[in-house]
Amino acid sequence: MGGDDAPQAIITGTERAISLDPSITPILVGDEGKIRPFIKPNSPLRDVRIHHTTDMVASDDIPSQALRSGKNSSMRLAIDMVKDGEADAVVSAGNSGALMIMALMVLRTIEGIDRPALAAFFPTMHGRCCMLDLGANIECSATNLVQFAVMGDTFFRVTADADPSASYKPSIGLLNIGEEEQKGSASIRDAAAILSNPEINMNYYGFVEGSDFPMGVVDIVVSDGFSGNIALKTAEGTSRLIGTLIRQSFKATLFAKLGYMFASQSFKNLRNKMNPQNYNGAVLLGLNGIVVKSHGSANPKGFANAIKVASDMHRNHFMDDVKKGIARSLKAIDMAQEQKNKTS
Amino acid sequence: MGGDDAPQAIITGTERAISLDPSITPILVGDEGKIRPFIKPNSPLRDVRIHHTTDMVASDDIPSQALRSGKNSSMRLAIDMVKDGEADAVVSAGNSGALMIMALMVLRTIEGIDRPALAAFFPTMHGRCCMLDLGANIECSATNLVQFAVMGDTFFRVTADADPSASYKPSIGLLNIGEEEQKGSASIRDAAAILSNPEINMNYYGFVEGSDFPMGVVDIVVSDGFSGNIALKTAEGTSRLIGTLIRQSFKATLFAKLGYMFASQSFKNLRNKMNPQNYNGAVLLGLNGIVVKSHGSANPKGFANAIKVASDMHRNHFMDDVKKGIARSLKAIDMAQEQKNKTS
Repeated sequence: MGGDDAPQAIITGTERAISLDPSITPILVGDEGKIRPFIKPNSPLRDVRIHHTTDMVASDDIPSQALRSGKNSSMRLAIDMVKDGEADAVVSAGNSGALMIMALMVLRTIEGIDRPALAAFFPTMHGRCCMLDLGANIECSATNLVQFAVMGDTFFRVTADADPSASYKPSIGLLNIGEEEQKGSASIRDAAAILSNPEINMNYYGFVEGSDFPMGVVDIVVSDGFSGNIALKTAEGTSRLIGTLIRQSFKATLFAKLGYMFASQSFKNLRNKMNPQNYNGAVLLGLNGIVVKSHGSANPKGFANAIKVASDMHRNHFMDDVKKGIARSLKAIDMAQEQKNKTS
Repeated sequence: MGGDDAPQAIITGTERAISLDPSITPILVGDEGKIRPFIKPNSPLRDVRIHHTTDMVASDDIPSQALRSGKNSSMRLAIDMVKDGEADAVVSAGNSGALMIMALMVLRTIEGIDRPALAAFFPTMHGRCCMLDLGANIECSATNLVQFAVMGDTFFRVTADADPSASYKPSIGLLNIGEEEQKGSASIRDAAAILSNPEINMNYYGFVEGSDFPMGVVDIVVSDGFSGNIALKTAEGTSRLIGTLIRQSFKATLFAKLGYMFASQSFKNLRNKMNPQNYNGAVLLGLNGIVVKSHGSANPKGFANAIKVASDMHRNHFMDDVKKGIARSLKAIDMAQEQKNKTS
């Protein structure tokens, strides 16, 4: 059981998740002696199953080492439980790199998926958008990008608050440095050709720029892991910069302080909209199992949100749905390859 | 003479630039019949030289076509004047792609520079930072990145309001998806090794993430043109999103409107800090001549700022200074290559 404020934040977050959705059955994995004292007699977790281990992956462990020496760590045991069908998903606030490499090695990728991708939600003008990959893959082929689009499409639908069986097709954009057809790398342009194929049955929008997705132009933004990580972090950094400047503005003069008193209620909505805790829960997509990464500094609200992401994915059959999408994409990828062979 | 609001915004912007710095001698290139009526009898531009041509590059012209067929366009004639030594710099609010390709073909790169880079300033917590490349080069080698660092270093020093002859060494970061040594592509890691060499005599900070540069961690952010463009546009889009949400918050209730009345003066500083017009003037660095690209939608204040960038570069001997930097970098690049040959 990892995270900056473990086990307190994890336990309180899990209690919060159960109170919002009593159908969830949590299993806590970690040091029972350290966990138990935080569970009060009237807690909804009083009868929780604790899978005991004193081993753990530290936040500064090198991922490859954690993989070799962490076979009895709480992180590894939790992933093993997903592999063995004892658990439906793993949610961790621990070491990101270790979680990614352990989950990949233990669960392996779904047949038809070459590389897993890290996905998360961003706030936008019209709600939120899902972006992937956020850093699992530095360089990506056209096929990788198409697979990310398929996974993002399914992920968006199963975690949307709307009925996932409904006919809404989320719109998908490829992150690029211009909207024109000839922009970007060959991988991006080839991916665009495949995603435009009606056979793949997705709502492909076209290229989107860094300035477009905060405005809510598309539901899903697909990119290689390098650019996606830069975009995610730049959006976070810019939000933090402006947030700090706003606070300074409201403190600058007596008039501004008075202004804050009047406007504070309205600004609460803005803070709520931009609050990272509401978007907590990055997902490693493409593995034979559901793996959700909570931010290490997530508070109980944020951790509960990460559990909700895992629970939505399981309840709405993410795994079955994504496999169907992959089958459709393989056909479109083959057709694009044939087309290419013909023209060359 | 291009731009969304030409020639009016260009002329008013140029007047503004001269009133701020009377040592500037502008030459206007474009259709004299269209320009002249906007110059009032008492304008500081009343005796301006107008290099007349009715040809122009349209904003939607394809750059390669503009290069072939635009030999008498105002853009081309202005670049030719820099080549022929008749002008010290070209400032254009026209078609970006056409400006980049025309300037590259006419002026060519400085000896020792393989590829030009597009650079601009961003607002940060502590002032501003310069970022390059912003889209001229999708893929970059380690040598490209090192050359961008050298050009960024010189550009920052000559355009800083401080005395450029002073000993301040701007700090330089390489944009990456983590701060650890092993992160990122081989090009980035090799560039880091070269920039760390004392021979190159620059203040290399290390890797920076998208979340770091808005906080003002470094003066100069170096990246490939794809990631740099994504970062620039994401910062712009996020600012626009939050700006819109702030305006909505202030209009949400009667109390919030009252709050705005009290706080508006303090918020003016915030708006001023984040105003893109104050950062207008992207520069195409690495050519045998000074080329500044104003945003097409720049207002007179923004256009005057772009002229100031060109004038600072000329007055503070950007061209001589950058050539010295390149000479030092070649030595560091050679040493890194030797080191690599030894270890392999």
